[in-house]
Amino acid sequence: MSTPVFVTPSGKKLVTVIAGDGVGPEVVRATQRLIEATGAPIEWEEREAGAAVFRRGLPSGVPDDTITSIMKTRIALKGPLETPVGFGEKSANVTLRKLFETYGNIRPARELPSVPTPYSGRGIDLIVVRENVEDLYAGIEYMQTPGVAETLKLISAKGCEKIVRLAFEVARAEGRKRVHCATKANIMKMSEGTLKRVFERIAPEYPDIEAQHIIVDNCAHQLVRRPEQFDVIVTTNMNGDILSDLTSGLIGGLGFAASSNIGNDAAIFEAVHGSAPKYAGKNTINPTAMILAGVMMLRHLDEFAAAAAIENAVLVTLSEGVATRDVVGDANAVGTIEYTDALIANLGKRAASGQTRDYKPIKMPQISSAVDFVRPKERRVVGIDIFIESAQSAEELGPAITRLVAETPLYLKLISNRGTRVYPPTGAITDNADHWRCRFLANDDQADLDDATLFDTLQRVSAHYRWAHTEKLQYFDGAPGFTRDQGED
Amino acid sequence: MSTPVFVTPSGKKLVTVIAGDGVGPEVVRATQRLIEATGAPIEWEEREAGAAVFRRGLPSGVPDDTITSIMKTRIALKGPLETPVGFGEKSANVTLRKLFETYGNIRPARELPSVPTPYSGRGIDLIVVRENVEDLYAGIEYMQTPGVAETLKLISAKGCEKIVRLAFEVARAEGRKRVHCATKANIMKMSEGTLKRVFERIAPEYPDIEAQHIIVDNCAHQLVRRPEQFDVIVTTNMNGDILSDLTSGLIGGLGFAASSNIGNDAAIFEAVHGSAPKYAGKNTINPTAMILAGVMMLRHLDEFAAAAAIENAVLVTLSEGVATRDVVGDANAVGTIEYTDALIANLGKRAASGQTRDYKPIKMPQISSAVDFVRPKERRVVGIDIFIESAQSAEELGPAITRLVAETPLYLKLISNRGTRVYPPTGAITDNADHWRCRFLANDDQADLDDATLFDTLQRVSAHYRWAHTEKLQYFDGAPGFTRDQGED
Repeated sequence: MSTPVFVTPSGKKLVTVIAGDGVGPEVVRATQRLIEATGAPIEWEEREAGAAVFRRGLPSGVPDDTITSIMKTRIALKGPLETPVGFGEKSANVTLRKLFETYGNIRPARELPSVPTPYSGRGIDLIVVRENVEDLYAGIEYMQTPGVAETLKLISAKGCEKIVRLAFEVARAEGRKRVHCATKANIMKMSEGTLKRVFERIAPEYPDIEAQHIIVDNCAHQLVRRPEQFDVIVTTNMNGDILSDLTSGLIGGLGFAASSNIGNDAAIFEAVHGSAPKYAGKNTINPTAMILAGVMMLRHLDEFAAAAAIENAVLVTLSEGVATRDVVGDANAVGTIEYTDALIANLGKRAASGQTRDYKPIKMPQISSAVDFVRPKERRVVGIDIFIESAQSAEELGPAITRLVAETPLYLKLISNRGTRVYPPTGAITDNADHWRCRFLANDDQADLDDATLFDTLQRVSAHYRWAHTEKLQYFDGAPGFTRDQGED
Repeated sequence: MSTPVFVTPSGKKLVTVIAGDGVGPEVVRATQRLIEATGAPIEWEEREAGAAVFRRGLPSGVPDDTITSIMKTRIALKGPLETPVGFGEKSANVTLRKLFETYGNIRPARELPSVPTPYSGRGIDLIVVRENVEDLYAGIEYMQTPGVAETLKLISAKGCEKIVRLAFEVARAEGRKRVHCATKANIMKMSEGTLKRVFERIAPEYPDIEAQHIIVDNCAHQLVRRPEQFDVIVTTNMNGDILSDLTSGLIGGLGFAASSNIGNDAAIFEAVHGSAPKYAGKNTINPTAMILAGVMMLRHLDEFAAAAAIENAVLVTLSEGVATRDVVGDANAVGTIEYTDALIANLGKRAASGQTRDYKPIKMPQISSAVDFVRPKERRVVGIDIFIESAQSAEELGPAITRLVAETPLYLKLISNRGTRVYPPTGAITDNADHWRCRFLANDDQADLDDATLFDTLQRVSAHYRWAHTEKLQYFDGAPGFTRDQGED
């Protein structure tokens, strides 16, 4: 088993089932029926989350007894959840991922028989492994000024190591040969660069797997040019969001896109699609995405034979041209229930095309859970960035702020506006916003500044200008922990 | 003319030409030859930028007399530029964009005859309008702790208004009917949300054009499912980077991807591809991307007839099967020079397929250049977020920090770790990094706090914990200028 499992007295593996909203109950029921038909030793614990819960006034959309159930079972099979407008700000889906630290989102994309796409016949069969808890998705935002918004993109070395090791372990568990790491490290040398550096450090521990870094925009380009070159792609949360939806498109759309959110303590299996309320209760929705999520769940529970039986039944049934309306149009379609019946009837048959892989359990990475995951030998504080709001020009601000810190241990190195140096002037034509970064560095370039000195700088500036934000400037083991501006020497 | 132009005494329009590195001189020369062959009244001013300049020790890669030339001509035709390893950290391409505030990157993607792709015959003909100066590309980064990196994503209301109006104006200039705005506003309500809100506010001013918002991951999905539904897509810098490279892939790759970087003061036209040093000087490179950039430049200079002549010549020549090795393979290829000769021979012919559009000049948006673009009627300061570094646990930090601010006007609302609330505890399983956000709010929820009070809070915390970063918490016109955490009430 990849993570702990709760086994009932009768020897069955307990799974928390959340039917979800809209079409959720139909696709989840189809998945349960198939799993039951395989005879796999699974027992369900039905729990609630989503729209009805929000409407009862619970702002997380996830009741305590649902959380308690997953704490016990460690496994959830989950239908799509809605956040009704006006009830809470946060998605119940994200709440669940965060509650159980399911740091890896695994998104397979595989060509399916009789699901025609522009890439049919080319054998697309890849997995996107997306970091699932940090990055821009943390949703940490501040209006810096009335007209300038800021979102923090936070990337930790620990988070990168977990997702990189998970990607290699997924590759091994599925007998895959190659892992691409997609980043924008050329522009974001610190945040995206951390993922690239961690990837390059860890890759040699997996000599059986080819490791290659690729710039994320080129990755998107290559995915539409030659998708068959990819096997596993590991990437940060926001980039992974875009790349994984792109890859779902390559193989026929969200009707076939399954997903697992896995961590060392729990795993949640779901379809990527939403609750599609307009199709709810109509017996027309394609349940394949949810069913393939069920297949991923069975493998997670070491029920490899049942997983292979269902996967083969999907391939056989689609090959026979039996499919829902999204695939074959209204005239030739079967309903959700009839499609599921056909799948059940095909359990035990082996697909001619599309061999299933020889899966092994994923060996979940075990890395240090130390909070201070990286410990430098030497560090010092060399200055402070103070972001101010002002309607003045760079030419007015520069000399005035220089004077404010005259005769102190710091000097004004530069002012920049959204990353471009505007003081001292560069000759650039810059259309400025009212958000100015003032960078103060120690006159003594070997100094290690104390807080009192930094507070003095902040107080001098704030006496004349409205400040919004400060960043301490530090060196770690001799390297600057901050980037230079466009135009900075 | 979309932007000002320098006209020589002999009545010609002056253009700064930068041959660039690697294959740059070949593709730029091909473009110049074609433009000259149309008889368009263009005069060249040759200037330098890129690898040789870096190697001479200029860290920007762009010499003053190149800048002076563009300041005069306002128009540059530019080959690819390299930043040699070890010379400077910043790209000369980015330097040029920033120097001239070319805030819009325009990336057309159009199906071409005899360039087979999985989408051939579906008539892809779209433009990505990408914001070009702000967002994560500002490259403002800080190591918050030795193991946690931060990049600031900065989005201004002014920047959004400029790019949105530009997108609508480009649509009008080309007779296009629909503009999609692609954002991740559902997760980043402030930064990406600004673009969405500005788009929805401005769209009614263009009643002749259909306006539609789309979530960026769905946009990537739809681009590979039904790319023909798109006409113009406007988006932020990082998302636009990925989407525009995706769309280039749809129509046959970077050999055909032209780009303009335009602002109200200057415009730079270039191929998207790099300098490809291994093909340099071999007379094999496909110059079409650069030639199509030249076509965009001619339209920018109101030389519509010459632009149409070259565009038709490209379509006719490709239809004849005359192409470089990247398109037709080594055995059937012609060289760069011979391909250009064929294009020149086809000037004056009209393409059977692929009508060219009835282009008009782009009416560059004129919006306020006020630094304080958004002015709230009312504002107040309600608290401060202090990001600290600590190897302690949330359970230790919470009570200790609560005590530090006892009997002050502020209280500790919560502590979060990469956006997830960890104190007061939620019961979540959270694998924490050593980067903790401590949110302090005024006890009096109507208070407007002064700096002295905030500094007192910062000093109390910093006396016991190492701080890295602070954010002032403000309300603007009654609305909070900060987001709540996952798990925050």
